[in-house]
Amino acid sequence: MEIVNLNLGEHSYAIHIGAGLLSDERLLNQEVTGASVFIVTSESIAPLYLAKLQAAFREHRVDTFVLPDGESQKNLSSYESIVGELLTKRHNRATTLIALGGGVIGDVTGYVAATYQRGVNFIQIPTTLLSQVDSSVGGKTAVNHPLGKNMVGAFYQPKAVYIDTDTLQTLPDRELSSGLAEVIKHGVLADGEYFSSIEQEMTALRSLQPESMARTIRRSCEIKASIVAQDEKETGVRALLNLGHTFGHAIEHLMGYGAWLHGEAVGTGLVMAADLSSRLGRITQSDAKRIKNVVASAGLPTCPPLTLSVDDFIESMQVDKKTTDDGLRFILINDIGVADLVTDVDEAKLRETLLARESLAEN
Amino acid sequence: MEIVNLNLGEHSYAIHIGAGLLSDERLLNQEVTGASVFIVTSESIAPLYLAKLQAAFREHRVDTFVLPDGESQKNLSSYESIVGELLTKRHNRATTLIALGGGVIGDVTGYVAATYQRGVNFIQIPTTLLSQVDSSVGGKTAVNHPLGKNMVGAFYQPKAVYIDTDTLQTLPDRELSSGLAEVIKHGVLADGEYFSSIEQEMTALRSLQPESMARTIRRSCEIKASIVAQDEKETGVRALLNLGHTFGHAIEHLMGYGAWLHGEAVGTGLVMAADLSSRLGRITQSDAKRIKNVVASAGLPTCPPLTLSVDDFIESMQVDKKTTDDGLRFILINDIGVADLVTDVDEAKLRETLLARESLAEN
Repeated sequence: MEIVNLNLGEHSYAIHIGAGLLSDERLLNQEVTGASVFIVTSESIAPLYLAKLQAAFREHRVDTFVLPDGESQKNLSSYESIVGELLTKRHNRATTLIALGGGVIGDVTGYVAATYQRGVNFIQIPTTLLSQVDSSVGGKTAVNHPLGKNMVGAFYQPKAVYIDTDTLQTLPDRELSSGLAEVIKHGVLADGEYFSSIEQEMTALRSLQPESMARTIRRSCEIKASIVAQDEKETGVRALLNLGHTFGHAIEHLMGYGAWLHGEAVGTGLVMAADLSSRLGRITQSDAKRIKNVVASAGLPTCPPLTLSVDDFIESMQVDKKTTDDGLRFILINDIGVADLVTDVDEAKLRETLLARESLAEN
Repeated sequence: MEIVNLNLGEHSYAIHIGAGLLSDERLLNQEVTGASVFIVTSESIAPLYLAKLQAAFREHRVDTFVLPDGESQKNLSSYESIVGELLTKRHNRATTLIALGGGVIGDVTGYVAATYQRGVNFIQIPTTLLSQVDSSVGGKTAVNHPLGKNMVGAFYQPKAVYIDTDTLQTLPDRELSSGLAEVIKHGVLADGEYFSSIEQEMTALRSLQPESMARTIRRSCEIKASIVAQDEKETGVRALLNLGHTFGHAIEHLMGYGAWLHGEAVGTGLVMAADLSSRLGRITQSDAKRIKNVVASAGLPTCPPLTLSVDDFIESMQVDKKTTDDGLRFILINDIGVADLVTDVDEAKLRETLLARESLAEN
């Protein structure tokens, strides 16, 4: 088992990574301090892992809640249903909420944990690659609003994260690729050597070669943990983790959430951010090409739907929640392994990238 | 103007107390950093003070939201309406939410501020005595759920609190008395000398004598700020502020929220907690009588509705959210000015206090 520590003062916690963690009763009980446990999971995950997890808490009162699958469940109505069930079953402030599933389950459950009786114990057990390397690390919780994604939420850290790499065996290929988008992003923004190893090991990663996958999850968690530790509430450097996300969110928003997987939109967003960075002279065309190639090799799209117009993109990016009073901001690439927040992007260059989007599909 | 500082590390802020603060544009703008402001207020307060407050932010974009009056508005539906309006008007993370009103407005607006885009700037302008000495100080925000009061919320500190004592001129007498219940509570739990001065100045307080009122608000804010500074998240000493509230919440819950004002229930709750403390030999009968007399002199009820049975009370207190895995807890009085959290209360003595409730109405 590997352990990555997220150092956040009194909010510090450990991310445990390894095969078979869902069978490790002693470990799973370490951070459960009260008499009761409440597990939230999804319809696709429940038949695979819920019984095993319930068994691990045989000494506690265990209640469970199963949400339908999909991003559309990440809303205030799911939030209210979970809160209602917690109250009906009389869970008090000493209870522990456990999220067993992907990013939607983690985000909704985390937001309930942050606000139920002003905050209760929370444990993350992410079962998708995307949630293992990204959404379960760093304490961002939220639900969507009809007028925008992640519009209500809280920064709320779990007591522990348990990543059982065996759960990836049941993950659909398309979702595995989606998770690899965030892995590639970590290399591009923080560690050029890691980026090279991802290029080299892509075949091993896509076939779930255990050592390669465990090493990759650990390194991605380390990178994310290190950035979050410097800036828990995203007032500065944490914004770098949005590399590829301004373009990506626009694609998700314009296509309707769920049409593209989040990682698919981020993968294409990375390619577009690389293209814009190269047009602005920050990286070479050859580096932009390397980024596009590794995104393609992960089984991800490299070009947005051609049905979306340039003006659609620009309008959509203006309502992106990262918009501050400074106007639209981009994370751009200065070198493979180095990214930067830029607030004064030349709109003409942005339009060039958007006009050239068709060419991004080419090899 | 008087200033009480709440020392909470990076969450520290100042509580400003004085006459005419709503006309002090410079002061009101000190903590507004972004380009926009969003004021939430209630139907009864809007015609009195909203135009004046809007004028103070003439340099900013100002949007407003007016909720109907009453505890019944403190729910997730109000929460969603405010969030929807913030999104419709495109308020971003740099906006400042301002609560102008009593406890309901402060609690709902604070909860929106805590969670809108994972947290935005928040300023409290409490206009009732209850919210000035209690709910606006300390960062507790919440809304009610059909199954329980304050069941979802967050600890979220404002950037500043502005208490304009002139607003008490328009406060109905019954609400003034309700606020005095929390003032009396502060004396009983933390400062015997303050309790004596409240006894002596009750007539001056009820007639809004300016110096007496300003001094009282300052001392109550100091006591609450000092306790909150020791225990922001209520894991220990902050629970002492619940003196009178276990009985009080039971009355509010059993009568239906809104039938009794919160301070009325707390006033009676203080008398009942004093009675229980005296039956347990912690204070003298004469001290319990002093507490009952000052509650009565504030214009508050000293005895719960006789329609409520002993079993109603016991059942209701068991679902109080302060219930932890340790079972029901009470804050009891050891001396006027000293309170204590007690977890092993003899249920027979509790039943004696409940059976004797009729006698609490007597002089």
